[in-house]
Amino acid sequence: MIKRQIKTHSREDMLDITKIIQEALLESSRMDISAVLVFVPHTTAGVTINENADPDVRTDIIAGLRRLVPMEQGFRHAEGNSDAHIKASLLGSSLMVPVENGRLALGTWQGIYFAEFDGPRNRTVVIKTI
Amino acid sequence: MIKRQIKTHSREDMLDITKIIQEALLESSRMDISAVLVFVPHTTAGVTINENADPDVRTDIIAGLRRLVPMEQGFRHAEGNSDAHIKASLLGSSLMVPVENGRLALGTWQGIYFAEFDGPRNRTVVIKTI
Amino acid sequence: MIKRQIKTHSREDMLDITKIIQEALLESSRMDISAVLVFVPHTTAGVTINENADPDVRTDIIAGLRRLVPMEQGFRHAEGNSDAHIKASLLGSSLMVPVENGRLALGTWQGIYFAEFDGPRNRTVVIKTI
Repeated sequence: MIKRQIKTHSREDMLDITKIIQEALLESSRMDISAVLVFVPHTTAGVTINENADPDVRTDIIAGLRRLVPMEQGFRHAEGNSDAHIKASLLGSSLMVPVENGRLALGTWQGIYFAEFDGPRNRTVVIKTI
Repeated sequence: MIKRQIKTHSREDMLDITKIIQEALLESSRMDISAVLVFVPHTTAGVTINENADPDVRTDIIAGLRRLVPMEQGFRHAEGNSDAHIKASLLGSSLMVPVENGRLALGTWQGIYFAEFDGPRNRTVVIKTI
Repeated sequence: MIKRQIKTHSREDMLDITKIIQEALLESSRMDISAVLVFVPHTTAGVTINENADPDVRTDIIAGLRRLVPMEQGFRHAEGNSDAHIKASLLGSSLMVPVENGRLALGTWQGIYFAEFDGPRNRTVVIKTI
């Protein structure tokens, strides 16, 4: 299991971690990797795959999720970050990417993103080769 | 493949199944488990990871999802549970958790939840070590 | 890694790919398959599991997602398909299904769906046995 520390820069942030995951693959002692599990060990952040070209897509995803789940809507949890917990569950904490010859088999326009919903913070990404 | 029967208690419910998954790991005959696949074989329930401390977070997630997808919005499916099908797809039917030395490598505040959207019912959780 | 080409038929479409995935399993050279990873290498489409019986459920899911994320809401991305990117992240690009004796261990009412949000297009599905 490989852990990487990252730093998010605002309350809501989509950080491209594709290179971090690819580099972690090279460290794995496992031969013949089939896939990689990317896992976020937090409850107010998630992980997703989306476009790696136009950064406006990331801005639109953050804005779209904020419109879906506004920060204040009479939640009970006293920390004021229930919207972040809900968004974390909507995107999910784990994803799998196929690996071929030691390389992530992503589509041309795909990048892997750490989705922060309650930053800025120091965060951890867990990478496990399968 | 290990199956566990659970019982949900209301139409919408988030049941903590972390201990059930951890105990199933001990039953697996596989040596050197890398990860565990948690799979829900239903179409009106899902599985998600979220906070295991303040139970208000679960209440807020259920309420937040109900606001996103209200029970009645002129759906065509005659069983009146289309909202439950949509929520099941939003959270997802499968998730992967890394395993280290036979233990779930969850973050400090993480628990695994069976998310019921059309209960109360008897339900099944499928656990597969990888 | 097995790739299959599919064709979606409208801007938003849910294509049943269960049979495609099951047939791909038979092609795998791997003995004793534990699970199958279904991966969508696109950023305006996703993959999900839902009901395989009443086709109205698919119609309701597409309509429900459209209500959640309307096509126009002042997005910045110039291609006019930001809603499709957001829906792709909500459903996800990867899912795992347990396999027993070479067969998908799906629930009785479950099918695997390619979820198109910016079609009609020729698309690819990636299948990896684990």
